[in-house]
Amino acid sequence: MPNRVYLDWNATTPLRPEARTAIVATYDRVGNPSSVHAEGREARRLVEEARATLAAAVGAQPRNVVFTSAGTEANALALSPGLRGPSGGPVERLLVSAVEHASVLAGGRFPADRIGLIQVTRSGAVDLEDLKVRLKDGRSALVSIMAANNETGALQPVAEAASVVHEAGGLLHVDAIQALGKIPFDIRRVGADLATFSAHKIGGPKGVGALVMTEGITGLEPVLRGGGQELNRRAGTENVAGIAGFGAAVKAALQALPEDVKRMATLRDRLENGLRGVARATVFSDDVERLPNTVLFTAPGLKAETAVIGFDLEGIAVSSGSACSSGKVQPSHVLSAMGYDPAVAQGAVRLSLGWSTGPEDINRALEAWRKLGNTLLKS
Amino acid sequence: MPNRVYLDWNATTPLRPEARTAIVATYDRVGNPSSVHAEGREARRLVEEARATLAAAVGAQPRNVVFTSAGTEANALALSPGLRGPSGGPVERLLVSAVEHASVLAGGRFPADRIGLIQVTRSGAVDLEDLKVRLKDGRSALVSIMAANNETGALQPVAEAASVVHEAGGLLHVDAIQALGKIPFDIRRVGADLATFSAHKIGGPKGVGALVMTEGITGLEPVLRGGGQELNRRAGTENVAGIAGFGAAVKAALQALPEDVKRMATLRDRLENGLRGVARATVFSDDVERLPNTVLFTAPGLKAETAVIGFDLEGIAVSSGSACSSGKVQPSHVLSAMGYDPAVAQGAVRLSLGWSTGPEDINRALEAWRKLGNTLLKS
Repeated sequence: MPNRVYLDWNATTPLRPEARTAIVATYDRVGNPSSVHAEGREARRLVEEARATLAAAVGAQPRNVVFTSAGTEANALALSPGLRGPSGGPVERLLVSAVEHASVLAGGRFPADRIGLIQVTRSGAVDLEDLKVRLKDGRSALVSIMAANNETGALQPVAEAASVVHEAGGLLHVDAIQALGKIPFDIRRVGADLATFSAHKIGGPKGVGALVMTEGITGLEPVLRGGGQELNRRAGTENVAGIAGFGAAVKAALQALPEDVKRMATLRDRLENGLRGVARATVFSDDVERLPNTVLFTAPGLKAETAVIGFDLEGIAVSSGSACSSGKVQPSHVLSAMGYDPAVAQGAVRLSLGWSTGPEDINRALEAWRKLGNTLLKS
Repeated sequence: MPNRVYLDWNATTPLRPEARTAIVATYDRVGNPSSVHAEGREARRLVEEARATLAAAVGAQPRNVVFTSAGTEANALALSPGLRGPSGGPVERLLVSAVEHASVLAGGRFPADRIGLIQVTRSGAVDLEDLKVRLKDGRSALVSIMAANNETGALQPVAEAASVVHEAGGLLHVDAIQALGKIPFDIRRVGADLATFSAHKIGGPKGVGALVMTEGITGLEPVLRGGGQELNRRAGTENVAGIAGFGAAVKAALQALPEDVKRMATLRDRLENGLRGVARATVFSDDVERLPNTVLFTAPGLKAETAVIGFDLEGIAVSSGSACSSGKVQPSHVLSAMGYDPAVAQGAVRLSLGWSTGPEDINRALEAWRKLGNTLLKS
């Protein structure tokens, strides 16, 4: 679409050219990775190459990487009762932060009465004191805390959480879907026992994700059974094209990371300053460390639904801060958890930047906001 | 790979040009189908177009189509305790034929003690008398019978089974993954309550499948939760490229079906006659109706593993009749269920044809078999 400005990278990112090339290259290769003939072995090689790339990128062993159909499936797979690791388990209950993605809040295979919520601060950071209190209950817990929030961009204290969780004999799962490719992320440095990733948030294709574990995690119950793929941890013919594209996107994203961070942070700062200059706009979580690409803002009286449509009509793709699916805007559970009342939670607009965002995109967005910020609030 | 002959279409099929074009076209479109802006609405349109195509192709309403990450996930989703329909339910137990795919034999969400096996004849067709006996137990059953077997190609009496199942107050799930695009398949004509499909078996991409239901089926429990996608029946960002490719493959496959059937059946007959002429080879299930593209054969003393490698070295990609994953050849549960002893079950080789198979491929395969059939059996 010509002249459009895309600032909704946290929802889904344009395919990186490197991923596109890798995907299209697989189309002339026909094999099923489970087949023993040459075509099958070639498909297997592509899958294993991507596995090695992702493993190396996040500090894991290739054998501990399980490819899935998306971040949602990776999260569902990670949240498995009975997990054990060198540092704890078997886990009997689940603690998730109140600002997790819906696929984590759904709790995986844990029954509802075994799931607890960890509070967050007004700034959207997980409250480690609350985590400590909840861990005292006694039964071994799997704790799930995201590396960075998809709505506010707030970075979470995952390394500190890992120490706290391990001390209590639990295991830590980190949903790193929004962090990968935007900040350095290494499961060893964090101390995470499990971490999850999604291809289409880093410029890979939609329909691919991964669960990565540290060495020695056992007890993972598959979500999809009936085939020996992924070392019996995930049945179903591998999405060879998608996995190859994921691998290529990981490589490209990590190579570009230092430059991307600098460029995005600079543009983000300019964007925020510009937004704040109109209609008394404020930015959420701006008093904590955040991703370099995410801006969640509001203004007194702003309605997100109207704002998103207004920006769209000006040629700018942005989103409401709230989780949305099938086109319906829901109040943000993230802002509710941060203690904002529903009126505020329904007035938050998210602008997120990515690998091809440039200064002109920011100019266009600010131009639109100057127009909208004044007219929207009059109605 | 030049000069290779690919005869393993039942494992995975080369991408149809129409599917490739549709997939690549999505790469310039960036949206998440859940986003409300123009890019999101465009992605939504692509998904809904594919949904309408698949629905029309198999005689269903678009709202009753649920896209999944593969046939395996579609089968897992279909096998849901508590399903109800106009003709029966809620189902409390599961009956599956002994020749089903591993993802059906795994039983979905039914506990192991609620799963029963339906016997098959020596020819590999489901034994309807055995089905009747097992249905008499009283509790309402979900019955899962495939439209066509992936190893032997044997067509199953699914329409007759539907009557039997409905009379007993049960529901019928038909795994139509190998049937779609190879024989006409319409859920209304069959009388199936649920049916499952896979894109990469008809020339679409790997990593996409679908569950299709008749009108009025309720009680489906999602496998993946935590997002409102697919009308709350399957959470996770839609694989837009894959779904668009699936739609294009369905359209192309159904358009080509009459021609494909004739061409494949002719080539298949020539192939079988040629195979039988060497080393006393015999073809399984050749006394029942079969898919026009599938040949499962053996010869006295043949070892499938050696044969597959032998064919591969001659440039021909074939598979052992048995289900295999991660490169390990397992004895075929299909032939075991048909009453063959393990030695035979480990000696079956499958050649399957597809949309680009031509006479020269058959010549090459027969040439290889004349060579192998004599040398392999000497060792």
